[in-house]
Amino acid sequence: MESLSPESIGHRWVLDKGECSLLGVFGDDKMIADTARVSYRKGTKQTSTDKQLIRYLVRNKHTSPLEHATLRFYIKAPLFVIQQLLRHRTFKFNQSSARYSEMLNEAYVPLPEHITTQDAKNKQARTEDKISEAQYVASHMAGESDNSFENYQHYLKEGVARELARINVPHGTYSELIVTCDLHNLLHFLALRLNPHAQYEIRVYAEAMLDMIKGFFPATIEAWEDCSLKSFTATGTMQEALSLAISHVQSGIDWSEAVSVAADSTGWVSKSEKDQFIGWALTLKA
Amino acid sequence: MESLSPESIGHRWVLDKGECSLLGVFGDDKMIADTARVSYRKGTKQTSTDKQLIRYLVRNKHTSPLEHATLRFYIKAPLFVIQQLLRHRTFKFNQSSARYSEMLNEAYVPLPEHITTQDAKNKQARTEDKISEAQYVASHMAGESDNSFENYQHYLKEGVARELARINVPHGTYSELIVTCDLHNLLHFLALRLNPHAQYEIRVYAEAMLDMIKGFFPATIEAWEDCSLKSFTATGTMQEALSLAISHVQSGIDWSEAVSVAADSTGWVSKSEKDQFIGWALTLKA
Amino acid sequence: MESLSPESIGHRWVLDKGECSLLGVFGDDKMIADTARVSYRKGTKQTSTDKQLIRYLVRNKHTSPLEHATLRFYIKAPLFVIQQLLRHRTFKFNQSSARYSEMLNEAYVPLPEHITTQDAKNKQARTEDKISEAQYVASHMAGESDNSFENYQHYLKEGVARELARINVPHGTYSELIVTCDLHNLLHFLALRLNPHAQYEIRVYAEAMLDMIKGFFPATIEAWEDCSLKSFTATGTMQEALSLAISHVQSGIDWSEAVSVAADSTGWVSKSEKDQFIGWALTLKA
Amino acid sequence: MESLSPESIGHRWVLDKGECSLLGVFGDDKMIADTARVSYRKGTKQTSTDKQLIRYLVRNKHTSPLEHATLRFYIKAPLFVIQQLLRHRTFKFNQSSARYSEMLNEAYVPLPEHITTQDAKNKQARTEDKISEAQYVASHMAGESDNSFENYQHYLKEGVARELARINVPHGTYSELIVTCDLHNLLHFLALRLNPHAQYEIRVYAEAMLDMIKGFFPATIEAWEDCSLKSFTATGTMQEALSLAISHVQSGIDWSEAVSVAADSTGWVSKSEKDQFIGWALTLKA
Repeated sequence: MESLSPESIGHRWVLDKGECSLLGVFGDDKMIADTARVSYRKGTKQTSTDKQLIRYLVRNKHTSPLEHATLRFYIKAPLFVIQQLLRHRTFKFNQSSARYSEMLNEAYVPLPEHITTQDAKNKQARTEDKISEAQYVASHMAGESDNSFENYQHYLKEGVARELARINVPHGTYSELIVTCDLHNLLHFLALRLNPHAQYEIRVYAEAMLDMIKGFFPATIEAWEDCSLKSFTATGTMQEALSLAISHVQSGIDWSEAVSVAADSTGWVSKSEKDQFIGWALTLKA
Repeated sequence: MESLSPESIGHRWVLDKGECSLLGVFGDDKMIADTARVSYRKGTKQTSTDKQLIRYLVRNKHTSPLEHATLRFYIKAPLFVIQQLLRHRTFKFNQSSARYSEMLNEAYVPLPEHITTQDAKNKQARTEDKISEAQYVASHMAGESDNSFENYQHYLKEGVARELARINVPHGTYSELIVTCDLHNLLHFLALRLNPHAQYEIRVYAEAMLDMIKGFFPATIEAWEDCSLKSFTATGTMQEALSLAISHVQSGIDWSEAVSVAADSTGWVSKSEKDQFIGWALTLKA
Repeated sequence: MESLSPESIGHRWVLDKGECSLLGVFGDDKMIADTARVSYRKGTKQTSTDKQLIRYLVRNKHTSPLEHATLRFYIKAPLFVIQQLLRHRTFKFNQSSARYSEMLNEAYVPLPEHITTQDAKNKQARTEDKISEAQYVASHMAGESDNSFENYQHYLKEGVARELARINVPHGTYSELIVTCDLHNLLHFLALRLNPHAQYEIRVYAEAMLDMIKGFFPATIEAWEDCSLKSFTATGTMQEALSLAISHVQSGIDWSEAVSVAADSTGWVSKSEKDQFIGWALTLKA
Repeated sequence: MESLSPESIGHRWVLDKGECSLLGVFGDDKMIADTARVSYRKGTKQTSTDKQLIRYLVRNKHTSPLEHATLRFYIKAPLFVIQQLLRHRTFKFNQSSARYSEMLNEAYVPLPEHITTQDAKNKQARTEDKISEAQYVASHMAGESDNSFENYQHYLKEGVARELARINVPHGTYSELIVTCDLHNLLHFLALRLNPHAQYEIRVYAEAMLDMIKGFFPATIEAWEDCSLKSFTATGTMQEALSLAISHVQSGIDWSEAVSVAADSTGWVSKSEKDQFIGWALTLKA
C-alpha cells in the first residue's frame, strides 16, 4: 500500500489502511516556559528551570502557555473515527470532500482478534472476548464494503452526482484530513482518547500522535503523563472514604478490608462512584 | 412515521425520514437591542428604535449582541449531513451514540427527482438534470441500505459489540442530536447552508430552521436577509470594473454591453471572478 | 446608591460600588439530563434518576450536556476585574464603551481591612495581614481617584475626544457589561475564581454569581461542588507517596509522621509539589 | 529607550513607548494552498496556481485553510488597547501579571497633534481637529501619570500587596503580552482595527502587524487586501438603489445626480444606510 501522506517529519501506519503523519511543529518546551515567564517579568527572580516551571504549569492547570505551541497532522481514518475527531472544536480541519472528488474506495475491516463482544456493564465499550464467528464476520464485513464500493462506482457511471452517489458508502470508509491544533487542546484530546474506555479504533490514532510529538516537547509530555494521564481526581466524598480507610488501617486492619469497610460506611450518590473509589484505593496498596 | 422529537415549540419533517424541532429560544429582538445599548449608557441619547438599531448592528457586522440569544434544536438527519453540521465549531452538540445504543435502522433514500447529474463546472455541486435511470437508482439505493441494516442486525446477533457492528452502515443512516447555538453563529450557518451551492440535503434543514425561528426575532431576521443573504460583496477589482461599466453607459452604450466591455478591459486574477462580476452586474439592469 | 442594573431575577451588591445581576436562565437540571439521554435512546433502559445521571456526567467530566444551559448576567465591576473576566474566551460580552459614552466617574476604593501585605511565598497573592497605614492608604487612594475623575472632566471640557480623555482614569474605574455564558464554562470560571488564590476583588463576584444560580440547577451545582470544588487531583508521584504513607501507617506509625517520611523518600520535581502533597495528605487525618 | 521584546524576526516601535514584534511564523502561502487541495485529492485536476487558488478561497470566504497558519507576537501596549485586543477570543494570550510582578511605570501620553475633538456625528470617534489647548493637555496628562506611578511606588513601600497597589494606575499604563493566533482570525482582527473608525492607538498596532507579516504570505495578503479591505458589501436595498441609479444614467443624467435621485426614491430603514450608499456610489465615478 502506498502512503497518501504529504511530506512529513513523522509517519505511522494505523489500523488496516490508515495513516497518521506529523507535518509540522511550531514551538518547543523553551517557548512554553518563555511564554509563561512573560507574567513574571519584573520584581521576581527567574529561579526555576524550564522543566520545573513546566511541571508547575501542568500540575496547576495553568495551561495557557501550552496553547501557543501548534501541531499539524495528516490523518487518513475511517469516517466514524473522523466524526469523533470533529467533536474537538478548537481544532482546525480540512477534510477531503466527497462532493468535490471521488471517495477513496477503501473501508476499515477489523482483524478477527478485534471483533469482540459488547461489554454488558460499560454500555459504551466492547470486551476483550473474541466472538466465536470472528473470522467469518471479518470476511463478511470485507465483502460488504467491497459491494458498497461497486455500487458507488455503478452510481457514478449512471451519472449520479458525487454528493449523492456516496450516501450508501460504509461509515468505515477511509477519508483524509489535515488537522492543526495547539498543544494544550491536543493533550486534552489525547487524555480522552488514550483512555482504555475510548474506542480501540481511535485510541490507535491517539497513540500514534503521542508517539510522534513526544520528542518535540519532552518536559511538557513528561509532566502531563504524571500530572494528567496517571493522575486521579478524588471527589469530596471519596476523600472522606479515604480518610476513613486510613483510620481503619491505623486500628490494625489490612488495607483491602479497610477500603471495603470505609466504602460501605460512606454515603454515595451512586454505586459506580463507590466502585471507582474502591478500584482506585486498592491500587494504593504498595 | 412517528416523530422521535422531544416536546417542542416548532417541528418540521425534513427529507424522507428526517426531523427538525425548535426546543427552546432564549432572547428576542428587544434583548439584542438592550444588549447593544449597554455600550451607550451615558452621554448618548436613545433615539433609534429597536428595529433601526438592529439594522445598524447587522449591516455594520457589530454582531456581538446577537451572540447573547440562544437557540436549541432537535435534529434527526443522515450522518453525512451531521458531519457538515459538526464543522460549526461554536455549536454545542449531543449526538446519539452508536457505541451506547443501537443505531436507527433508517437511511436516507433520495426521491428519483432529486437524483441528478454531476455539475461539470461547479465541481462540488449537482445539476437539476435528472439522470435517465433515476427510478432504478433510487430503488437500488433503498435495497442497498436495507441490506446493510440486515447485516448490522446479523452482526449484533453474532455478539459483535455495537461500536464495531456499525462500521458498514451507510453514510446516509439517520442519527439524532441536540444542537444549542447562539443567533449570530446560527445566522452564519444559515447563510452558508441556504446558499444554492450548499448540498440540497442540508439546505432543507437550514430552511426548516430559518422558518421556525423567524417569528422569534422578526427585526433581526429581516435585517439579516437584506444585509447578508441578499447582499453582494464587490472586491476592489470588481468595483473598478463597475466604475468602468458605469462610465461606458454614460457614453450611451447599453448596460449589458457596458458590463461586458468593462469586464474585458479589467485585469482579473481568475476567470471565475470575472464571471461572478458579470453575473452580478447583469442583475443590476432594472 | 442607585442600581444601574436592568430588570433582573437576582441582584447582589458587590465591593463598594459594584453590582452583579442574573438577567436570565435558559435550562435546568432536567434539560441537562435530557440532553445527555439523547446518547442512549435505543437499546438502553433509563434507570438512573436525573440526579444520579448528572452526578455521573460531572464526576466523569462528560460535561457537554452542561454546555446547553445558558446564563445571562449584568456586571458592574472595576476595569482590572473586567480584564480578568475577558480572559474567559467562551463568554459573550458587551461592555459599555468609553469611546461612545462618558465613563462612570466611580472607582473602587478598598476598605482598610482589605489593604493587606504582599505574600512573600505565593508571589501572586496578598496575605490577611493589614498594613499599618491601611486607613491612610485607603483615603489616599480615594483622593487619588477623585482627582483622576476631575481631570477626566477637565479634559472633556477642553474638548478632548472621549476615547483619549480616559487614558488616565484609574484601572479600578467601574465599568458595566452584559455577560452570557454556558453553564459548563461558567462552572470552570467559578472553580478558578472561587479559589482562595484568586484575587479577593474577583472572588466576591464569583461568590455572588454562584449564589444566584444555585437554585436553578440544584443537582448540577451539588455534584460540581463535591466533584470539582472539593476534589483533589493527585499526580502519579503523589499517589506513590500516598501508597508509601499508607504502608508506613500499617507499620504502626502515626499518620502525620507517615506522610512526612513518605514525602521525604519520594522523588519530586519541585518542592512546591511535595508541599502540596503534604498539605493535602494531612487533611486526610480523620 | 531599550526594547523589552524577546528575540524576534520583526520589530516595530509603536506610539510613544510601545512595541510590536513578530516572534514566529508557522506556514506560508504554499501550505495554505496545499491544505485546501486536500479537499480535491481524487477526480479533479490541479489546474490552478497557488495564487489563483488562494484568491478563490479568500474571495469566496472559504477561509478554513488560512486557520492552519500560526503567528506569534510580542506586544507592549497601553491597557486600554490590550482590553480591545482581549476581545478577540480565538487568540491565545499570556500577559504580564500585575499580581506577580511590579507594573511597568510607563503610561501612554499622546502627542499634542493627536489630541483632537470628539466627533459629533460618529459618536465613537474623534475628529482630526486639534483642540486649542493640546500642548497643555499633553503635558498635564504626562504629569498626571507620573503622579500615579509615584503613588503606586508609595503604596508598595507602605507594604500594600501588588494586586491592590495598582488599582489607581492609569488605563493607559503599558503592559506586555504574547499573542498567538491563526492567520484567518488575524486578518479578521486587522480588517476591524485597520478601519479608519478604529481608535488611532490600536490602528497603529494593526498597521505594524500587517507590515511585518506581509512578506510571509504575499499571495494571501494581496488577495485579502482586494477582496476584504477594499471590498464593499452592498445590502439588497443598496443594490436596488444602484440599479435605479444606473437606469437614470442611461436616461442621460450625470452619475452624481443619478445617485442622489435614486437614493431619494429608495425606501431605507435608516438615514445612515442611505448616506453610506451615497458615499460609496460616488466613489464609482471613474
